[in-house]
Amino acid sequence: MEESLVIKGFQASGVSAGLKKNSKKDLGLLYSSHPSAVAGVFTRNLIQAAPVALDRERIKSGRCQAIVVNSGNANCCTGKQGMVDALTMAKSVADRLGLPEVDVLVASTGVIGEPLPIHRVEAAVPELVAALRTDGLSDLAQAIMTTDTVPKVVDGQGCINGRSFHLAAVAKGAGMIRPDMATMLCFVISDIGLNPKVMQQLLQSATDKSFNRITVDGDMSTNDTILFMANGASGVSATAPEQMRVVGTVLDDVLIQLARLCVKDGEGATKLVEVQVAGAVTDRDARNMADTVANSSLVKTALFGEDANWGRILAAAGRSGAHLDPNRIDIFFDSVQMVKNGVGCGKTVESEAGAVLRKPELTLRLDLKIGQGFASVLTCDFSLDYVRINADYRS
Amino acid sequence: MEESLVIKGFQASGVSAGLKKNSKKDLGLLYSSHPSAVAGVFTRNLIQAAPVALDRERIKSGRCQAIVVNSGNANCCTGKQGMVDALTMAKSVADRLGLPEVDVLVASTGVIGEPLPIHRVEAAVPELVAALRTDGLSDLAQAIMTTDTVPKVVDGQGCINGRSFHLAAVAKGAGMIRPDMATMLCFVISDIGLNPKVMQQLLQSATDKSFNRITVDGDMSTNDTILFMANGASGVSATAPEQMRVVGTVLDDVLIQLARLCVKDGEGATKLVEVQVAGAVTDRDARNMADTVANSSLVKTALFGEDANWGRILAAAGRSGAHLDPNRIDIFFDSVQMVKNGVGCGKTVESEAGAVLRKPELTLRLDLKIGQGFASVLTCDFSLDYVRINADYRS
Repeated sequence: MEESLVIKGFQASGVSAGLKKNSKKDLGLLYSSHPSAVAGVFTRNLIQAAPVALDRERIKSGRCQAIVVNSGNANCCTGKQGMVDALTMAKSVADRLGLPEVDVLVASTGVIGEPLPIHRVEAAVPELVAALRTDGLSDLAQAIMTTDTVPKVVDGQGCINGRSFHLAAVAKGAGMIRPDMATMLCFVISDIGLNPKVMQQLLQSATDKSFNRITVDGDMSTNDTILFMANGASGVSATAPEQMRVVGTVLDDVLIQLARLCVKDGEGATKLVEVQVAGAVTDRDARNMADTVANSSLVKTALFGEDANWGRILAAAGRSGAHLDPNRIDIFFDSVQMVKNGVGCGKTVESEAGAVLRKPELTLRLDLKIGQGFASVLTCDFSLDYVRINADYRS
Repeated sequence: MEESLVIKGFQASGVSAGLKKNSKKDLGLLYSSHPSAVAGVFTRNLIQAAPVALDRERIKSGRCQAIVVNSGNANCCTGKQGMVDALTMAKSVADRLGLPEVDVLVASTGVIGEPLPIHRVEAAVPELVAALRTDGLSDLAQAIMTTDTVPKVVDGQGCINGRSFHLAAVAKGAGMIRPDMATMLCFVISDIGLNPKVMQQLLQSATDKSFNRITVDGDMSTNDTILFMANGASGVSATAPEQMRVVGTVLDDVLIQLARLCVKDGEGATKLVEVQVAGAVTDRDARNMADTVANSSLVKTALFGEDANWGRILAAAGRSGAHLDPNRIDIFFDSVQMVKNGVGCGKTVESEAGAVLRKPELTLRLDLKIGQGFASVLTCDFSLDYVRINADYRS
């Protein structure tokens, strides 16, 4: 993260509105000095927070100039008042910035089911707007943290016709994360010029390669939101297919890095583990098996215990619903083969496997040897701290 | 559990063969003094232990006279040697008892992937057979324990044409338990006379109402086995449909009690929680939602923390794939309504909810109010001890 990270035409800020304890930053703002194109990807949970419902409607215009976001309260399952509060939050920022209400989007994260203390938000908006800085992304990244231990900012750049454009994104993750975007907020900004429909495709594709491939606890949130603003301030536009591919590559790269940071900072996580399934009948089979292994509590607690308990990996693979031949499957911890044709490779490899398991990052690879299907999912281990954090979350 | 529990014509025993540490009982035997009818239900995991494969074949005869079972080693993913060892284990008992090999079934539970120390098993068989007693069920129940903290024995009786029959069952559970029968062994014996085909139907039906409705950690084992022996020693037979229903009721009742004991003794569990979903469009929807809530790590850690965090329940409900109307759903903790029409009932009910959450047994009820579908699943909380137990399982 660079403190001096600037994307042309954008400003950001983060302040404390008193929604979180300890006067931590809990209200953030992103602002483009002129109207920006926008795209968004949202949770598929049937229970959706008010800001998600509002943003879904508003991004249909393809236009946005500011995003206001709070942590400490999800404004979810808050009834009609929830939507009133989300609208008030947007209006309060729009008024202060002199923008049309409809050009302001809203996001919230935190505890579900408690009314948003909207008066505190309104009271903090003047300070929030006054704090806008061209290099304010790190303040925004702090303002959206819940159980995250570090703010997450990643940037990238690309070149079209010899001219460069920049892209940066902030995210929060930590808990309630599983493939298909769980409690996760991500805001992407770029000075490239793009058509909103193209942006939507690029964002969906990048999300599938990044945030839809990670899991912390298998839970999916009610508030997941990824918003992408592109204001064209660089003077560079992407219109031809190969130009869009250049932007897509930068976007993919930034979101993959951010998703990885989210798993690494998963609640209580001590290890980042990539689960690869190769040689499945189909990619879908491979994905189902990778998800099942990556979400297995028994596999994840064994990883925490640095126990090369490959039997649990096989047991999870066997209940995933994916085709497999028990007598062909191989399992590797990094390059150490633990299982060959469904049978353990014996005690001698256990010490090598132990060395792999003590690493902060490792790969579990299952090769089914019955087809060409492949998938990869990022997960973390399941620690005592995960339980401590989540048993005490609201207290 | 009654120490003096006796089922006519049956004997049981449990001894230490040195498979577990600390000289704990780890080898058990069930024996009927004459050939018995048999039925079995097994894991649906594609990775299956050698004894499961052997029993599947042998119960096709509908006949069995003894079951030998070990804990401390699952004899799973042990290659061709695994089947050789399972056959040896059966033969060794058959020889000692003077039975045909094919009338002896085998079960194993414990660590996956390590060769079964078959010589220790063979060496212990003479002592195992010598230890057979008519009231030996509690010894058998101890011999099959892994991370269970208490042995589990339940008995029942019924009456047909004024004559009584008896039924008893032992089980082990504790970890790797989810609906659809996870690491779970259960042996049922009765002195009723029954046709093996009828037994199979009764056993499948009772399993669906009991062991297929419980979850500890969402993992499913490679060794799950429920075997039911009925030797007719009471002189009472069930042949007419209403007689079979009498047996079915007794069997259901015993297995439901045992399944409940297994969840209550779930690894690290401090609470037994029934998750009910009512008013769903279909029973299947209700079941999917109940399973998702019952397996959610965030819900289970909140239960451990005695935190009335109903937002996590709603979030799990919303990602379950079941139809729901976010504006109609109600949630109750026992009789305390926490959510009405998708909105929290406020701080005032939280203290009442807290009192419910401090109870060792409670019910979470979701009423979707959009149909007649209903399901109920038993689960437990997710504690620090669950992680401790499973991080250190093999060490």
